[in-house]
Amino acid sequence: MFMQNIKAKRGPGRPPKIDSEQRSTKERMLRSGIELLTEYGFASVGLERVLKQTGVPKGSFYHYFSSKEDFAQQVVVGYGKYFAAKLDLWLLNEQRLPLQRIMDFINDGKQGLLRYQFRRGCLVGNMGQEVAATHPLLRDQLEAVFIDWQRRIEACLLAAKVAGQIADDVDCAVWANYFWIGWEGAILRAKLSQSVTSVDVFTKIYFASLPGCNME
Amino acid sequence: MFMQNIKAKRGPGRPPKIDSEQRSTKERMLRSGIELLTEYGFASVGLERVLKQTGVPKGSFYHYFSSKEDFAQQVVVGYGKYFAAKLDLWLLNEQRLPLQRIMDFINDGKQGLLRYQFRRGCLVGNMGQEVAATHPLLRDQLEAVFIDWQRRIEACLLAAKVAGQIADDVDCAVWANYFWIGWEGAILRAKLSQSVTSVDVFTKIYFASLPGCNME
Repeated sequence: MFMQNIKAKRGPGRPPKIDSEQRSTKERMLRSGIELLTEYGFASVGLERVLKQTGVPKGSFYHYFSSKEDFAQQVVVGYGKYFAAKLDLWLLNEQRLPLQRIMDFINDGKQGLLRYQFRRGCLVGNMGQEVAATHPLLRDQLEAVFIDWQRRIEACLLAAKVAGQIADDVDCAVWANYFWIGWEGAILRAKLSQSVTSVDVFTKIYFASLPGCNME
Repeated sequence: MFMQNIKAKRGPGRPPKIDSEQRSTKERMLRSGIELLTEYGFASVGLERVLKQTGVPKGSFYHYFSSKEDFAQQVVVGYGKYFAAKLDLWLLNEQRLPLQRIMDFINDGKQGLLRYQFRRGCLVGNMGQEVAATHPLLRDQLEAVFIDWQRRIEACLLAAKVAGQIADDVDCAVWANYFWIGWEGAILRAKLSQSVTSVDVFTKIYFASLPGCNME
């Protein structure tokens, strides 16, 4: 998704890295983390794998991150922001009516599932299942990401209300919560069934159930 | 949930185990597997942990299972059956109307989440997120479990149709699929938010959206 396999340019003993290079090294590790943690999960991915993929020596890792959990937390923050920007791309597109924007986001997600043969899914969903019970700080970080995404869907549903696409009495906060419940459930099932049917089932019923829904 | 911390009674060099004892050893390992894999996931749980919890020596493990993946597959089959029996307990309860039976199952699930402080959730959902991309046999096993559970909800929805609780034109197979999409999404979110709100949101909207739904 992100990874470009750039090799580290300098070994130990060279002059200290300049700020922009540091940012780039850290950025590279975080991007590798998004890719690996999304596909393989938190427990499966050893630091060695991240270091190997990015060409960063172990000492440098601990310059940027205090532990694997700290690394994962920063990966989650980075993924949350990346995904929020992606959501905004679709949900703030004023060329389209609000409900169509949500549909555009869904269709883009379906394309992503197919493009990666259902290997990736959603980092937040994957890690949420895996670490919720064992890593409270990571868990709270993942929940914060969901709350952020939820607010963006809520804003789009409020715009749909203003545009007369849904009934005036729809509780947009609740339906935004419900959207992510269904979305994460559908992505999980798509990965297991190796098919986008679950996303289609979710999408069709979600919109058909939204009171006063008018997609035209 | 299941674990009873029974210690192995015999060491190496003793007479061969009798069939019922073998069943009991295997059963004990599978129960420990359900507990550990549900809470910690596939990658985090080493065989040592299962052996330690059950008091079974390593050699015995390989007498029953060819690998950790084989063990996990049998754990999934066992969990699928255990959960199917639990579903039947609620969904075939003729003392209650069909939709109320589904509600009874949901309420029992909520109690389970609270009882284990949101540490457990659903083994199939947890493992599905984690191993879908990396273990195709396990993935197919998990999908088969969902299909089995789905048929049980479908049968209950068909009974709801006969009882006049939902409209005649409801596609019960699709709504049963949608049920598990929402359920798994709600359980994931409950674990992250440490609250049953997501289950309540899912339940309320699911039933309100079911065409012709009449809970009385």
